[in-house]
Amino acid sequence: MARGEIDVAALTAGVAAGDRRALARAITLVESGRADHRAQALDLLGRLRGAVPGRQALRLGLSGTPGVGKSTFIEAFGLMLTGQGKRVAVLAVDPSSARSGGSILGDKTRMERLSRDPQAFIRPSPSQAQMGGVARRTREAVALCEAAGFDLVLIETVGVGQSETVVSELCDLFLLLLAPAGGDELQGVKRGIMEMADLILVNKADGDLKPAALRTMADYAGALRLLRRRPQDPEGFPKALCVSARETSGLTAAWEEMQALALWRQENGHWTARRAAQARHWFEEEVRQGLLSALTRDPARTRMEELGQAVTQGALTPEAAAVDLLRSLT
Amino acid sequence: MARGEIDVAALTAGVAAGDRRALARAITLVESGRADHRAQALDLLGRLRGAVPGRQALRLGLSGTPGVGKSTFIEAFGLMLTGQGKRVAVLAVDPSSARSGGSILGDKTRMERLSRDPQAFIRPSPSQAQMGGVARRTREAVALCEAAGFDLVLIETVGVGQSETVVSELCDLFLLLLAPAGGDELQGVKRGIMEMADLILVNKADGDLKPAALRTMADYAGALRLLRRRPQDPEGFPKALCVSARETSGLTAAWEEMQALALWRQENGHWTARRAAQARHWFEEEVRQGLLSALTRDPARTRMEELGQAVTQGALTPEAAAVDLLRSLT
Repeated sequence: MARGEIDVAALTAGVAAGDRRALARAITLVESGRADHRAQALDLLGRLRGAVPGRQALRLGLSGTPGVGKSTFIEAFGLMLTGQGKRVAVLAVDPSSARSGGSILGDKTRMERLSRDPQAFIRPSPSQAQMGGVARRTREAVALCEAAGFDLVLIETVGVGQSETVVSELCDLFLLLLAPAGGDELQGVKRGIMEMADLILVNKADGDLKPAALRTMADYAGALRLLRRRPQDPEGFPKALCVSARETSGLTAAWEEMQALALWRQENGHWTARRAAQARHWFEEEVRQGLLSALTRDPARTRMEELGQAVTQGALTPEAAAVDLLRSLT
Repeated sequence: MARGEIDVAALTAGVAAGDRRALARAITLVESGRADHRAQALDLLGRLRGAVPGRQALRLGLSGTPGVGKSTFIEAFGLMLTGQGKRVAVLAVDPSSARSGGSILGDKTRMERLSRDPQAFIRPSPSQAQMGGVARRTREAVALCEAAGFDLVLIETVGVGQSETVVSELCDLFLLLLAPAGGDELQGVKRGIMEMADLILVNKADGDLKPAALRTMADYAGALRLLRRRPQDPEGFPKALCVSARETSGLTAAWEEMQALALWRQENGHWTARRAAQARHWFEEEVRQGLLSALTRDPARTRMEELGQAVTQGALTPEAAAVDLLRSLT
C-alpha cells in the first residue's frame, strides 16, 4: 500500500481494539474535507457499527465561558474517573478557535496529567470554523470514541452562540460550569442555555470564593425551580451544585448525581428516546447541509454567480433570479 | 371577474398611484402562502418595476426593546415628517408577534394620530413566525411602499434574535432606540447590534430622566468611538444623540443627521453599493430557502419521513440515510 493511503479495515480493527493512535487517525479522517476521505470515513463508521454493535459511552456535554476553570475541572474530573478505572475521551467543539487562534484544548499542557493518562484521550478542536462542519465532525468523533470503548465522552464548548445547541444535540447529559458571581446577578446566562442544563456546577468553591460560590449555587437553584419541569427529569433535577476543581472537592458528589440521572433516564425510556431524536435531528441537518452544498458546485455555482451579478446590477429582482435558479436545479 | 379574484393590472395601477387601500391589498397578497397568490405577487412586483422604475424611498431600520418608547417615537417622528409634506410608511418585523399575540404595531391606537394621517401608512406585523417568511414579506412590502411613492419607509423591530440582522439587510440607515440607563452600564446591547447602528437615539431625554439620558448618550458615544471606522461612514459617524419623543425635542436634529449621512453615502457610492449587496444577499437567501422547501414536498417529504423512521429506530446512521436521500434528489 502506498504511503499515506488509508487501510480502512486495519483502522476499523485498531479503533475497535481501543488503540488511541488509531482513534486519532480515524478522527483526522472524519475531519477531512476531501471527497475520497469522506467516502472512507463513511466506510469506517459503517464497519465499526458492525464490529462493535451497541457499544455506548455516557456522552457528557460541558459548557462554560472562559475563566470559569473549565480545563482545571476537566483535568480533575477526568483523573477522578480514570482513577476509578474508567476510560475518558475529551472532545472540543469550538467554532471560534480557527479565528481566535487556539481553543482551550489546543494547549494540552493545561490538562497535562490527563493528557498523559493512558486511560484518557484528548482531542482539540479542529481548525474549521463552519458550524455545520464542526457539528458533523464532532458527532462522528463521538461515535468513534464510543466504538473505541471509552466509557465517557466529554464534549466541551466555550459556549459561543450556536455551539451549545450543537453540543446539547450530541450529549446524554448537559453540564453548565460557572464561576461564583460577584453580586446576586445570574451572570447573564441566557435562559435558553439554562433550559438545556441538567446540572449546573459552580466551580471555585474554595478559599475566599467559597461564600460567593454557595450564594451563586443557591441563586441558580432558585432559578432552576422556576423553569417548567421537563418530562425527562426525575424529582429534583435539574440541580445546582458547588465544586472545586482545584481542591478536587464536590466532584464525587457531582458524578453521583450524573449517574443517578443517567440511570433514571435509562430506566424510564428517556435515554433511548433522546438518542433517537438526536439521530433524527442530525439526519435532517445532514440532508439540509447536503442540499445546500449543491449550490457550491457546478453547474449551480456558475449559474448562481451569473444571476447574482444580474441582481447586483439591478437587471433582475432577487425573487425572479431565485425562481430562475431554482427552476434549473429541480 | 369573480368576487375575491385579484386583478393584478388594477392593483398595479392603484399602488403606482399611491392609493393606500391598494397598497394594503398588495401587501396582503405578498404575505399569502398560497401558490397562485405567490405567482400573482411576483407578477405585481414585476409590473410595478416597469410602471415606476427607479422610485426609491429612504429605508430606515429602527430597533429597540419594549419599554424604550418606540411607538411614541414613531408617532412623533412620523408626524414631524408628514408635517414637512413627506409620505411615511411604517412596517413591523416581529417574528415573535405570532406567539406573543400582537406586535407593538398590532395596536394602532398607540400611534393614533399617525395612523389617521393621510400621508402615513402603518402596517402591523403579519402573524407568521418563520423568519425566512417574515424577511421575504417585509422585503416585498418595502418594495411596494417604494412603488407607491412613499418618501420614507420605517422598518421597525422589537429586536429579538435574528430580526435586527434581517432589518439591517433591508434598510439604508439603521437606528437604535434606547432608554436612559440606570447606571453606567451599556444596557447589555450586544456588540453585533452596536456595529449595525448608524445612529443611536437615547429617548426619554426629558424631565427627571434627562441627566441619565445625557450620561447614557455619552457612554454610547464613547463605546461607538471604540468601534472600527466603517468605510461607509463619514467623520463622526456612527453617532449617539438624545431625543424626547414625548416632548418632540431632538427629532429635527436627528432627522438632519440621517439626511446628512444618507447624502454622504449617496455621493460616495455607498448607497448604491449597499443596495446592490442587499439584493444579492436576498437572492442567495431566496435560493437557499427555495431549495430547502423542496424537502417539504413529495417525493422528498415521504422519503425523508421513511428514512427518518429508520434512523430513529437505529436501522440506519444519520449520515448513511442522508446520503441515500440526497442521491434521490440530485
